[in-house]
Amino acid sequence: MNTHDLVRSLKEPANSKIVLLVADGLGGLPLEPGGLTELETAHTPNLDALAREGTCGLSIPVLPGITPGSGPGHLGLFGYDPLEYQIGRGILEALGINFPVGPRDVAVRGNFCTVDDQGRITDRRAGRPTTERCVAMCRKLAEIRIPGVELFVEPVREHRFVLVIRGDGLGDSVNDTDPQQIGVPPLPAQGADEASRRTAEIVNAFVAEAARILRDDAPTNMVTLRGFARYPNIETMQSLYGLKAAAIAVYPMYKGLARLVGMEVVEAGSSLEDQIETLRKLWEQYDFFFLHFKYTDSTGEDGNFPAKVQMIERLDAEIPRIRALGPDVFIVTGDHSTPSKLRSHSWHPVPTVLWSHACRPDGLEKFGERQCLRGGLGQFQAKHLMLLAMAHAGRLGKYGA
Amino acid sequence: MNTHDLVRSLKEPANSKIVLLVADGLGGLPLEPGGLTELETAHTPNLDALAREGTCGLSIPVLPGITPGSGPGHLGLFGYDPLEYQIGRGILEALGINFPVGPRDVAVRGNFCTVDDQGRITDRRAGRPTTERCVAMCRKLAEIRIPGVELFVEPVREHRFVLVIRGDGLGDSVNDTDPQQIGVPPLPAQGADEASRRTAEIVNAFVAEAARILRDDAPTNMVTLRGFARYPNIETMQSLYGLKAAAIAVYPMYKGLARLVGMEVVEAGSSLEDQIETLRKLWEQYDFFFLHFKYTDSTGEDGNFPAKVQMIERLDAEIPRIRALGPDVFIVTGDHSTPSKLRSHSWHPVPTVLWSHACRPDGLEKFGERQCLRGGLGQFQAKHLMLLAMAHAGRLGKYGA
Repeated sequence: MNTHDLVRSLKEPANSKIVLLVADGLGGLPLEPGGLTELETAHTPNLDALAREGTCGLSIPVLPGITPGSGPGHLGLFGYDPLEYQIGRGILEALGINFPVGPRDVAVRGNFCTVDDQGRITDRRAGRPTTERCVAMCRKLAEIRIPGVELFVEPVREHRFVLVIRGDGLGDSVNDTDPQQIGVPPLPAQGADEASRRTAEIVNAFVAEAARILRDDAPTNMVTLRGFARYPNIETMQSLYGLKAAAIAVYPMYKGLARLVGMEVVEAGSSLEDQIETLRKLWEQYDFFFLHFKYTDSTGEDGNFPAKVQMIERLDAEIPRIRALGPDVFIVTGDHSTPSKLRSHSWHPVPTVLWSHACRPDGLEKFGERQCLRGGLGQFQAKHLMLLAMAHAGRLGKYGA
Repeated sequence: MNTHDLVRSLKEPANSKIVLLVADGLGGLPLEPGGLTELETAHTPNLDALAREGTCGLSIPVLPGITPGSGPGHLGLFGYDPLEYQIGRGILEALGINFPVGPRDVAVRGNFCTVDDQGRITDRRAGRPTTERCVAMCRKLAEIRIPGVELFVEPVREHRFVLVIRGDGLGDSVNDTDPQQIGVPPLPAQGADEASRRTAEIVNAFVAEAARILRDDAPTNMVTLRGFARYPNIETMQSLYGLKAAAIAVYPMYKGLARLVGMEVVEAGSSLEDQIETLRKLWEQYDFFFLHFKYTDSTGEDGNFPAKVQMIERLDAEIPRIRALGPDVFIVTGDHSTPSKLRSHSWHPVPTVLWSHACRPDGLEKFGERQCLRGGLGQFQAKHLMLLAMAHAGRLGKYGA
C-alpha cells in the first residue's frame, strides 16, 4: 500500500487545527570553522520554547545531498513525494508570476532572442532587454490567434516570458526549441505522442507568427521556448487528508504551489504581521494553515548572514501571536536550507520543530541545527511530516487491527 | 533486489540463538511537561545493563505518524513490511479467538443484529447480548450446511462472532453486508472476481439460512458480516531466514500472528514465569524465540501509568533468567507505543535494545525513550530489525564480492 492510499484510508475527522509555518531556506551553515549557523546565532526565545515543549528533528527535503527548488521543497512538506509529483518548469514559471494556470493548460518558459537575417541565433537573451521592452513585446505576441486554443503571453522580466496554451487534449512531451547555442536557428517543436504533436503544431504556428510580428524588433526579433509542462494532476489536501486548508503567503510562487494541492489561497497582505492577522481572522474557517515566510531565503541567497539572522529573529517575535490562537499542532520548518555562506539553496537537512500536547519530549533546550540532530523526530523525509502532523492532531486512525 | 530476496540469498546456517522479547506497547509519554515516561520512571537495572552492553535505538513500526494495530506491529518486527503484508480483519479476528485458520480459509467478522418484520435493521448490535447468548446463537448457526465448503461459526463476545468458510477457490473481494446504518436491510454479498463471487454465493446462502433459523430469536434475529479476508500467503521464517522459530505467547492473537509467519506455537503457560520456563525447556530445539508480554500494553490502554511502570519492572526482573540461557542475540522492543496518557496505541517510535557480542557500544547507561534517541541503532524501520538480529547472530553472509 502506498503512503497516500494509507493516509486516505486512515484519516479521521477532528476539530483540531494544524499550523505549518515555512521559513523558506531556514537551514544554514557557519561562515567560519567553529562558528554558528544563522539560526544558532539568532536570539530565538520563542522558537526555543517550542523546541523545549515539542519535538525536533531535521527534514530531508528530497534525498540526502539533493538540493530542491521551491516546488519540490514545498510539495514534500505538503506530503507529496517530490520525486513522484513533478512540477514542470513552465508551470512553475507561470505560478511565479501569479498566472492562474488550470487543468487544460500547457505552460512554457519563453526567451526573447536575436536572430540574423538567416534566422540563426546571435544572442540567446536578446541583449537582456529592459522589462518594459519585454512587456511591450509580449503585448505584441498576445495578438497571435491559433484556432482551437487560447494563448496567453505574459512577461516575466528582461528577456523572459511565459506562454500558456489553453485547450483540450494537449500534451507536454515537446522538445525545447532553444538550441542552447548560437549560430543555428531555433529548433522546430516536435511532439513525442499524439497529444504532444498537437501542442507542437500549435507552437510552431505560434513561433512562425512571432517571427513575422517581431521581424523589425531586433534585438528582440525572435523567441525560443523551453520547459513545456502540463498542469499536474494532484489530489487535493482535502481529499487526501480531509483537511480544509488555507495558504497565507505573500509571494505568487508559494500561492501557486499551495493552489496546486488544492489549498484555498487567501488574501494575505504583504507582511508577516498581515499574514498572522489573516490567520487570526480565518482561524475558525480552516483546519490547516500554511504560512510562508520568504526572507530567510532571500537574505541567504544574498549571502547576507546578519540579515538572515535578523529575519529569523523577526519570525521568532511573531511566534507567540500564533501560539495564542491555540493550534493543536504547530510546526516550524523550511522547504530547504539556504546558507548565506553558499548564497543559494542547499541540500542540508532543515531544522524542524513540531509542537503538540501529544509530543514525546526529547530534552532539547534550543532550536538550531545541532540541537535538532538530537531531536525526537530524527532525520526524516519531508514527505512524512504531514503524517506526523495528522497523527499529533488526532486525525489518523490505527492501521490494521 | 527486494529485502526478502536479499536476506534469503545471504542467510547462512549457524548455531546461534536469537531471543526477541516483545513488550507490547512498550513506548510511552510523560503525563506532564517535564516529566518522565513509564519506561524512564521504572527501575530497570537489568534492561539498563543490556543497554550498557548492547546497542539501542527507536523502532518506527510502519511509517512516521502511523499507529499500528497488533498485526502490522508484529509483522514489522518479524521482518515483513506491514504495508506489503496485510492481514485482513476477519483473519485477525479469527486469530484473536485462537481459531486455527489455514490456507483454504476465508474468515469474516460477524455481528448479530436486530431486524424488523420487513427485514430492516433496527439495532446493529442486537442490544449487545450477553456472551452466553452469543455462544448459544453461534451454536444454532453452526448447524448450517452449504455444499462444497466447511463452515465454522465461533463466538467472540456480546454481538460478535467469526465465520470461517473453508474450501477451494474462494476469494475475499466481497463487500461488507453491514450497511453501517439502521432502517435498511443488510446488503447482499457481491464478489468482485470469480473466486469472490463463489464466496459471495455461499455467504448469501448462509445469511438466508441464518435469517430463517434466527427468525424467532429477536433481538438476535439476523447477522451482518464484514472484513472478508483470506488466509495470507506469507513465506515462513524458516524459508526466509533459515530459522527454526518458536512462539512463546500467552494470548491467542500473538500466537496466531506467529503462526502466520510459520513459527511453531508452543504451549507457553499463562504467565511470564511460565513463558521463561518454556523457553528454558525448549532452548536446544529452536534457533529463534519470540516471547510476547502483553501487560505493558493493557496497562497503557487502561491509562494506568503506575501499573505500566510496575509491569515494566516485572519484565525487567525476568531478564537475568533469559540472559542466563546464553542467547547470542537478545532483543527487547515493542510492537508499538501505548502511552498511558493517550490510553491507546500510538505512533511514537519504540525503545529497542539489541544485545550481542558483536554490538557496537553507543555509550548509553539506561534504557529509555530519550536515551534510545542517542542509540547506535538510530531511528530504524521495524522491518529492518530482523536483518540486524541475523547479522549479529552470524547468520548473514556478505552481499557481493
